[in-house]
Amino acid sequence: MSLDAVLSRIDADLDAATDRLKDLLRIPSISTDPAFKADCDRAADWLVADLQSMGIEASKRATPGHPMVVGHIDGPGPHVLFYGHYDVQPVDPLELWDRDPFDPQVEDTPKGRVIRGRGSSDDKGQLMTFLEACRAYKEETGTLPCRITFLFEGEEESGSPSLVPFLKDNAEELRADIALICDTGLFDSRVPAITTMLRGLLGEELTITGPSKDLHSGMYGGPAINPIRVLSRIIAGLHDAEGRVTVPGFYDGVPELSPEVAEQWRRLGFDEAAFLGDVGLTTPAGEHGRSALEMIWSRPTCEVNGISGGYTGDGFKTVLPSKARAKISFRLVGQQDPHVIRENFRAYVKEQLPPDCSVEFHDHGASSASTMPTDHPAFEAARHAMTDEWPDPAAYIGSGGSIPIAGHFQDILGMDSMLIGFGKDDDQIHSPNEKYDLESFHKGTRSWARILEALKVT
Amino acid sequence: MSLDAVLSRIDADLDAATDRLKDLLRIPSISTDPAFKADCDRAADWLVADLQSMGIEASKRATPGHPMVVGHIDGPGPHVLFYGHYDVQPVDPLELWDRDPFDPQVEDTPKGRVIRGRGSSDDKGQLMTFLEACRAYKEETGTLPCRITFLFEGEEESGSPSLVPFLKDNAEELRADIALICDTGLFDSRVPAITTMLRGLLGEELTITGPSKDLHSGMYGGPAINPIRVLSRIIAGLHDAEGRVTVPGFYDGVPELSPEVAEQWRRLGFDEAAFLGDVGLTTPAGEHGRSALEMIWSRPTCEVNGISGGYTGDGFKTVLPSKARAKISFRLVGQQDPHVIRENFRAYVKEQLPPDCSVEFHDHGASSASTMPTDHPAFEAARHAMTDEWPDPAAYIGSGGSIPIAGHFQDILGMDSMLIGFGKDDDQIHSPNEKYDLESFHKGTRSWARILEALKVT
Repeated sequence: MSLDAVLSRIDADLDAATDRLKDLLRIPSISTDPAFKADCDRAADWLVADLQSMGIEASKRATPGHPMVVGHIDGPGPHVLFYGHYDVQPVDPLELWDRDPFDPQVEDTPKGRVIRGRGSSDDKGQLMTFLEACRAYKEETGTLPCRITFLFEGEEESGSPSLVPFLKDNAEELRADIALICDTGLFDSRVPAITTMLRGLLGEELTITGPSKDLHSGMYGGPAINPIRVLSRIIAGLHDAEGRVTVPGFYDGVPELSPEVAEQWRRLGFDEAAFLGDVGLTTPAGEHGRSALEMIWSRPTCEVNGISGGYTGDGFKTVLPSKARAKISFRLVGQQDPHVIRENFRAYVKEQLPPDCSVEFHDHGASSASTMPTDHPAFEAARHAMTDEWPDPAAYIGSGGSIPIAGHFQDILGMDSMLIGFGKDDDQIHSPNEKYDLESFHKGTRSWARILEALKVT
Repeated sequence: MSLDAVLSRIDADLDAATDRLKDLLRIPSISTDPAFKADCDRAADWLVADLQSMGIEASKRATPGHPMVVGHIDGPGPHVLFYGHYDVQPVDPLELWDRDPFDPQVEDTPKGRVIRGRGSSDDKGQLMTFLEACRAYKEETGTLPCRITFLFEGEEESGSPSLVPFLKDNAEELRADIALICDTGLFDSRVPAITTMLRGLLGEELTITGPSKDLHSGMYGGPAINPIRVLSRIIAGLHDAEGRVTVPGFYDGVPELSPEVAEQWRRLGFDEAAFLGDVGLTTPAGEHGRSALEMIWSRPTCEVNGISGGYTGDGFKTVLPSKARAKISFRLVGQQDPHVIRENFRAYVKEQLPPDCSVEFHDHGASSASTMPTDHPAFEAARHAMTDEWPDPAAYIGSGGSIPIAGHFQDILGMDSMLIGFGKDDDQIHSPNEKYDLESFHKGTRSWARILEALKVT
């Protein structure tokens, strides 16, 4: 059977595949920082060349921001759209990395071999599992089992400003029978997963201004309002004593879990103590009366992602600053409306401003939560295909992270998505020393070969 | 009479004196930032050379930090120690400066001519008023009216770590009949002042650690404790609804103003609305029921001088950070004990830490408040000498800023201090676009000539 030959070829090709991934990881394609614009472009070129090397028609498409990469190849099965992103998160604080984040290397660790470097897991390593599966399939059989459209984005880590216009402008070209999105994780190292619940994300930046300029805290401390103190009070008030978000109307549209899903999640045997212990914690800090898995997969949150104001360098400066700033994000679930929540948040902040303070808001994007239709036949086909590859049966799970692309595919292209990925909780994505398990890369590639084979006959 | 000739020489020499000050201002002697170590050294060398050019015996003295400059010259009157500091504050945010902070220039403004540049008022312009008075006096008369010891420090803006050991090691050499400290301001442009009440200062930096590393706010937001939120809650709790500091025991040793001093301050006719209006404010934000002048001169405060945590660059990063940091200072009055307050503050913070959070503290120095003995004959002599120079009589005032040197002179050298300076509230010291009025520089120099002449016969 040809699938076995494809899988054997994937096994034989692992070292070369790893080298290809390392090539891509060397490109510092940090999308949020304008200093890396040329590198983002270079990563797009690399993907175009890689697709073309497999005989896939591919091109780089300009956007007002970083380019998209689009590829097409025909095949006998249904038409699938594969999505990944080639941009990566910033690397600061750089001093916490044990190696240059853009000099990737395979390392032996107590938990197995890993590929270390920024983007290894999020999302270059993941998207390359699919490309390597396609490569092996094509080389072994001369064709691909499905008609495939490839879409690689370069702005996923910076709010995807060009994505919606691009999908709208190219809807006919991109619409397929189903989308495959590779930007999620395994449930654990034995249980692969299809993510069927995604939280939405709302990003806000607020800048509070008090005095018209920075002041000396000796000459003005006392009578002059301090915007750091004002901002701290607002942040402190965003959660009540039960850990619930206090923005008015925040819980409108937040559903309770159905008993079936709650039971399915209980059966997963999520190890809350290990999950927290891995990052030095012992006690769930969020909403009282909710399990950690609920908090991450099915409850909305509000987090402060950054704060700054006054003098933050070495030493001490007795400044009473004019401005203080915070970046705040909300993770959304169910039917929560990001636009209503943004307005309610802004009104809530304004109501709490003392005299002489003003606030400016900066919108860092918004997306609703998504829930996937697991009754679509592709879901069970894919779940069985993955079950064949991994020790334990594949599961339908939720995700704390926000992958707005699935909602956009639904809204703009009228297309459902299967979110399948091979990341692990300890991959340290968005953090120093990001890694991707070599096993994730290898079995991920094998999984895609199995899934494509299974989809061929759906 | 020789004083008139000295004053005329000061008038004639103003342009050359301004050029000398600009030379000193060009040296970016930012003491808190190790990148400017060589510049601090260069500023010290400049002062040694300037003293020597007047026939004053002078030398640079090494310390574990930036050097001290010490000079000596004999004279018929009492022995005075003159103190100033040659180091300056950092210049960030640089983008708010209208010119290079280290390319000083004389500018015409609607309020008169000013010398613009970092350190123009704090403290290079101020210390040069005294040197220019000495230069004119010496050039005109061939001698100086008092025996003078000069002490210039290079760490005043970074907590003065070397000062106390240096004073102890050189007590015999530095002890004088009285100290003259030039680092304070006029009451207003008509009323010169001797500052007789100084607030103390306590600097603390705290770093709160939650998770052992930076996390993805999607994967961990909810169950993982966020140190920015913890820090915000602690800061928000540092003041009660009446604007009073909540650290236990904080108000121990805080005296109420005597009716005499309160009445004297009322007579000064301080324009609270103008003071606040100058910096874009309308409403005193501090302790309820206290005037702005009380808040600055005779009440203790707690301010946040800097805060940082998470991602603070351009764009957005959905990080849940491991650490958050704040720089907090307390201004102290009366008999408040900075060491007790430091311990109480640290205990207070620790008590409020939720599970899984730890805190580290960094001590940024401490000094007690000082009150000067205005019954010492030098005070009235100096007050009358200044009254001769300015439109309205000189006043005894308080100061919101902290000048710990006066306390150290008292404790280590057993010597009282007169704090006389010519800065103005709108000098923007510690802020972008710092300036020193040319009138402050000119009449300040003339004031010192008068004061030295008056002290000669005390």
